[in-house]
Amino acid sequence: MNRITDLLKIKYPIIQAGMIWCSGWKLASAVSNAGGLGLIGSGSMTPDVLREHIRKCKIVTDKPFGVNIPLLYASAEDFIKILIEEEVKIVFTSAGNPAKYTKYLKDNGFTVAHVIANTKFAKKCEDSGVDAIVAEGFEAGGHNGKEETTTMVLIPMIKEVVSIPVIAAGGIATGKAMLAAMALGAEGVQIGSRFVTSVESSAHPAFKQKILESVDGDTQLTLKKIVPVRLIKNKFYFDVEKKESECASIEELSNLLGKGRAKKGMYEGDTDEGELEIGQVAGLIKEIKPATEIINEIIREFNFAKGELIKIDF
Amino acid sequence: MNRITDLLKIKYPIIQAGMIWCSGWKLASAVSNAGGLGLIGSGSMTPDVLREHIRKCKIVTDKPFGVNIPLLYASAEDFIKILIEEEVKIVFTSAGNPAKYTKYLKDNGFTVAHVIANTKFAKKCEDSGVDAIVAEGFEAGGHNGKEETTTMVLIPMIKEVVSIPVIAAGGIATGKAMLAAMALGAEGVQIGSRFVTSVESSAHPAFKQKILESVDGDTQLTLKKIVPVRLIKNKFYFDVEKKESECASIEELSNLLGKGRAKKGMYEGDTDEGELEIGQVAGLIKEIKPATEIINEIIREFNFAKGELIKIDF
Repeated sequence: MNRITDLLKIKYPIIQAGMIWCSGWKLASAVSNAGGLGLIGSGSMTPDVLREHIRKCKIVTDKPFGVNIPLLYASAEDFIKILIEEEVKIVFTSAGNPAKYTKYLKDNGFTVAHVIANTKFAKKCEDSGVDAIVAEGFEAGGHNGKEETTTMVLIPMIKEVVSIPVIAAGGIATGKAMLAAMALGAEGVQIGSRFVTSVESSAHPAFKQKILESVDGDTQLTLKKIVPVRLIKNKFYFDVEKKESECASIEELSNLLGKGRAKKGMYEGDTDEGELEIGQVAGLIKEIKPATEIINEIIREFNFAKGELIKIDF
Repeated sequence: MNRITDLLKIKYPIIQAGMIWCSGWKLASAVSNAGGLGLIGSGSMTPDVLREHIRKCKIVTDKPFGVNIPLLYASAEDFIKILIEEEVKIVFTSAGNPAKYTKYLKDNGFTVAHVIANTKFAKKCEDSGVDAIVAEGFEAGGHNGKEETTTMVLIPMIKEVVSIPVIAAGGIATGKAMLAAMALGAEGVQIGSRFVTSVESSAHPAFKQKILESVDGDTQLTLKKIVPVRLIKNKFYFDVEKKESECASIEELSNLLGKGRAKKGMYEGDTDEGELEIGQVAGLIKEIKPATEIINEIIREFNFAKGELIKIDF
């Protein structure tokens, strides 16, 4: 169909984002079985847990799936070795320099996509031999770029500087948004928030419920002095905001953040004290559904919206 | 063609944003003559200057044009009276409560559009009898909403809560972005930054040049403690950033801002000390062109991109 479906050998150019605490083998295999590309999010896993998820995923799907590896962790190299041993063929790297591992990954036969949020790193991706770029806008959940460039502006900017295919991320939960992203020149979409609220996601039910209840303005990019992260505005968020309004130092903010806040919120369901990483698009999500239904719905809406758009004639 | 072209009696659903220091009669008439809707930006005008611009605009175009009135100024009511006297029929209100003047405007025969950035004010617009909503995303230049919702997310959110037509604003400078906005459900687009760099814009040439030179990450939403405004990162911006990092009070920031910064930057061309209000999309703008060419180019690109999108078939 296009370069993304060809590259990843998938039916629909829909990639389920590899997310900490939410996307294990259950979600990844469900998405792959439905015709998209499922990604296991290794960022919250130990090496053994990652290996177990890969093996379980292989049992329940014979379709392509991949693993997301955030490069900022010291464990990135160990994770890559596991992927080689377990014969995973697709890797999405993020949160780091694409020059670091891409050659090594390509030499080992991987298809490599890398997540970026600016033109400088997009060019680095292409120079490093990355196969596809995930361009993630300001509206996306979780960790985010310092430039704050939105999906609407970022995709055309990235398209101007690279010729490898671009997957749009940030603000995409529906077929209409997928159509919009492809109008901007993306050849695929990476969807996070919508799959956090899937049946197969390992997000805690209380976190899923918070997402369903959220409306516009309920998420905010915060902790910019440390690493910008988009969170639901809960007690923890307001604690951070208060500290920041008092001009807290990086050290004070790091102490407030502590360790394990994301696990506490997203996996253990402490919606007051935990970090609840989610995109702005949370406000558009109304129901928990199986991943297959989500994908079928997105494709149906995409086709319907395309039919409406065709009617516009100047 | 659709509800926006019908409502405003224009050929293309492209509205040129009414912008301080940039959009007088020359720009508004050029856009209207090219088939879009030109708006005179009254925000930087005295009543006499506004009257002069309206009269000049009427001499050079027999097409519909309108005036943007920011409701936060005390002069808003005087401006409305001038519009009534001069028989302007279209008004775009912004920066205020749509409940305040809409009934008065409708009683006087105006077509009224109002600019919003969240669902709460969108509903207020519909309840107040506003004819069309301009939904402006986080990526837009100048003053902006506190929710920081991007165009990609905002348009579907607004579409969910109102049935009156929606005009998308923020991040739109090209035919592809117009197509994306309409994929999301907008029936028209409001374009600011691209017209700031038109031949007919009254922006200072040095400001236009700064826009052409800008790349991704060169604008930032700032002064959030006073009123959020998106500016090019120049000396003044970095002065604000420094003050904010020192936890300056609202009073200190207001003192630093002082009076007339926007005029100094955008109209007088002091690109160091002035406020340079522009959208993120500045980084995509490469050339100064006449408004007619800009509109023709957008429509050509819209049609081409639509043709490409139609080919995608699942």
